[in-house]
Amino acid sequence: MESETQLLTTAEAVQKSGATILRGGAFKPRTSPYEFQGLGARGLKLLAKARRETGLSIITELLSEEHAELVAEYTDIIQIGTRNAQNFQLLIAAAKTGKPVLLKRGLSMKIEEWLLAGEYVLAHGNRNLMFCERGIRTFETYTRNTLDLSTIPIIKQESHLPIVIDPSQGAGRADLVVAMCKGAVAMGADALLIEVHPNPAEAWSDGAQQVTLEGFARLMDELKPFIAAAGRE
Amino acid sequence: MESETQLLTTAEAVQKSGATILRGGAFKPRTSPYEFQGLGARGLKLLAKARRETGLSIITELLSEEHAELVAEYTDIIQIGTRNAQNFQLLIAAAKTGKPVLLKRGLSMKIEEWLLAGEYVLAHGNRNLMFCERGIRTFETYTRNTLDLSTIPIIKQESHLPIVIDPSQGAGRADLVVAMCKGAVAMGADALLIEVHPNPAEAWSDGAQQVTLEGFARLMDELKPFIAAAGRE
Amino acid sequence: MESETQLLTTAEAVQKSGATILRGGAFKPRTSPYEFQGLGARGLKLLAKARRETGLSIITELLSEEHAELVAEYTDIIQIGTRNAQNFQLLIAAAKTGKPVLLKRGLSMKIEEWLLAGEYVLAHGNRNLMFCERGIRTFETYTRNTLDLSTIPIIKQESHLPIVIDPSQGAGRADLVVAMCKGAVAMGADALLIEVHPNPAEAWSDGAQQVTLEGFARLMDELKPFIAAAGRE
Amino acid sequence: MESETQLLTTAEAVQKSGATILRGGAFKPRTSPYEFQGLGARGLKLLAKARRETGLSIITELLSEEHAELVAEYTDIIQIGTRNAQNFQLLIAAAKTGKPVLLKRGLSMKIEEWLLAGEYVLAHGNRNLMFCERGIRTFETYTRNTLDLSTIPIIKQESHLPIVIDPSQGAGRADLVVAMCKGAVAMGADALLIEVHPNPAEAWSDGAQQVTLEGFARLMDELKPFIAAAGRE
Repeated sequence: MESETQLLTTAEAVQKSGATILRGGAFKPRTSPYEFQGLGARGLKLLAKARRETGLSIITELLSEEHAELVAEYTDIIQIGTRNAQNFQLLIAAAKTGKPVLLKRGLSMKIEEWLLAGEYVLAHGNRNLMFCERGIRTFETYTRNTLDLSTIPIIKQESHLPIVIDPSQGAGRADLVVAMCKGAVAMGADALLIEVHPNPAEAWSDGAQQVTLEGFARLMDELKPFIAAAGRE
Repeated sequence: MESETQLLTTAEAVQKSGATILRGGAFKPRTSPYEFQGLGARGLKLLAKARRETGLSIITELLSEEHAELVAEYTDIIQIGTRNAQNFQLLIAAAKTGKPVLLKRGLSMKIEEWLLAGEYVLAHGNRNLMFCERGIRTFETYTRNTLDLSTIPIIKQESHLPIVIDPSQGAGRADLVVAMCKGAVAMGADALLIEVHPNPAEAWSDGAQQVTLEGFARLMDELKPFIAAAGRE
Repeated sequence: MESETQLLTTAEAVQKSGATILRGGAFKPRTSPYEFQGLGARGLKLLAKARRETGLSIITELLSEEHAELVAEYTDIIQIGTRNAQNFQLLIAAAKTGKPVLLKRGLSMKIEEWLLAGEYVLAHGNRNLMFCERGIRTFETYTRNTLDLSTIPIIKQESHLPIVIDPSQGAGRADLVVAMCKGAVAMGADALLIEVHPNPAEAWSDGAQQVTLEGFARLMDELKPFIAAAGRE
Repeated sequence: MESETQLLTTAEAVQKSGATILRGGAFKPRTSPYEFQGLGARGLKLLAKARRETGLSIITELLSEEHAELVAEYTDIIQIGTRNAQNFQLLIAAAKTGKPVLLKRGLSMKIEEWLLAGEYVLAHGNRNLMFCERGIRTFETYTRNTLDLSTIPIIKQESHLPIVIDPSQGAGRADLVVAMCKGAVAMGADALLIEVHPNPAEAWSDGAQQVTLEGFARLMDELKPFIAAAGRE
């Protein structure tokens, strides 16, 4: 999320292509304090506007216990990011808002640890928990991370909760996203989280992994036969 | 491969379910010198018998330069295993037999290194090279290895060569094999390598990752819609 | 930190053996919400008592932005733990207390990312930053983590800041701690963080990696020639 | 090993600085078939000449079962390299020569697998086995590999065999070698394997990790207090 125009253009385009939820980063966790840190509270208001104009639900990341109430006021789903996947106080704060929580897997989190981090949400009375696989850190350098699609059958075996796949962070390369999505759908993923930008070459962060608006529309078409084969709608 | 009965029973069953190639381990690379090391030359003869009786092609692993001629005499395809993926002398010996070579990815081999190991086959005049992803070693302990399905689009981008997926070694758990195969097919894998045993509970090695004959038949059925969705036969 | 007796016994013993700082976990980050979570505020008071009685400085972990003031009131040094190494809001909250900050390396944190996480402390005006290597997550299962001692010369090359080594978490085995400490001292570590318990077999957590009081005294003796060889006091 | 002059200059210099064994690569395992592959048989003769002129013992790598006799004729110790650490046929061939075997750890080899690979040497009647830690493959990119110095106490606990440390491959950076050597010596390493080159900037391979002749002499001096502290000669 960089500006009102960029956000609304993207929201309208992905809504037309069939997306039902919009993820936008208002508060962004950046490896360096000298990088772009997100639009903050102003970003939350932009997300609310995008919801009004498109009917899309909203998901955004919670970075600080102190923002829990503010973020919950605007968003439909709270994302807990990779770097905070074992920030248990933040998980508790998110749980207590009552909003559904999407828990990204930590960079080198064992599946058992991920399930146990999720227990921090459940144990504080919030049953609306989703897991999101976004690639683990390995020695491989061709991709940004190694997307572990085995998490799909495993989360389904070990829990009754939805599993979301994020191939954009997983691969770190837009040219691999289509194939990753096909695999995820075939294996039973409940949702896909795909980074889209009207002009990836000018994105303020992570441009290499962002799909264009046209690319997203094509992707949604190409997924149809795999959605059907998986017996989903 | 443990005995004639076990091999022929398996070969006939998988052939009926639609398999076209039979992989059997005559020489087996075992982590410990005190484990079962395979049937050796007698195993090669059993594989030849299975081929005569079922019409299946044969693939088996080459472990030693000294066996290159012997193995090539019996097999249709030579497998270079994970532990020998950068045993360049063995790759050259396999290449020189003129038989197609299936090169498994090393446990912590970068994709670039894998492609370069394949160059040892190509540079010695053998153009019939296949890559086989079988999972990489990570910190995760729920699965035996982490199957890296991103190799499917990557090998297709970086080469003109076939990519084979081995979900049995990749997951190390029979209960994950079906989902893994669906994902691999959807992403464009050219072949699947699946471990099958008439009675996995009594297998002499790796029982936990072996599918039953009935399980294999069901799997082949369940894959059909995904093969169709991927536009393959 | 389990009880007043256990804490004071340990504090007195390690002080006699030559320790100068006492680390105690008042708030404990536990993988599961159903494990012992620490004594909380009561633990902070016990640490203050241990300081009064022994003259040791105190270090304890900050888990939540909301506790920053409370923890700073009692402790001499604030620890940011492995799971929060990229919890940037917590780093900022710790920095703002003005207390020295000890930043543990994340489980799979690249050294560059660690230095940049440290920048969140420095950029908020707090110059008293220490790095603490506590082992990274690898495929090895003999040790709990792989202690990366190369961080000692690297942190010294890339910064002017102290580097602390934690062999207890690094190895996860008390029987390896002595050798690890010798190596760390020889390589120029500025401090060691060693887990000690009067009776490791009955510890409420991580018993396998805790050294006895006698073991700690012996260790301090055995390190003397290496401290001298390294030209330190 | 690039030329007679380069080898003999290096051999004489390291011998004067106190080295007792000379490692030279006659047959080199290279990731790509298009890189320099070593001098082969001519290299073995150069090593023999260096031994005659300096009195140093010789260690060189065996890459192929077919060269086992040839290599054993020239060398005092046979090295089995990282990429062949689980090439069990090569281990058996090396064992059968009767020469001492130095077994490098594989890139992602668990310590248990390393010990079991060593069993292939012992089980074939050769008791002169040494383990050589040379870094494992992790996600870290600052160093080429992560040198796992915990292997020193572990190999001593689990076996009666010597453990050798290779900080040159381990770090992949000459500027870290001195610190790594100090740590290894302090922890009880039985030998160090250090890459030396008269002019690293012009080395045909791995220049960044090679120490100069003067650097090696200084290193040997700097290690003396740590050797003394460790109670070794």
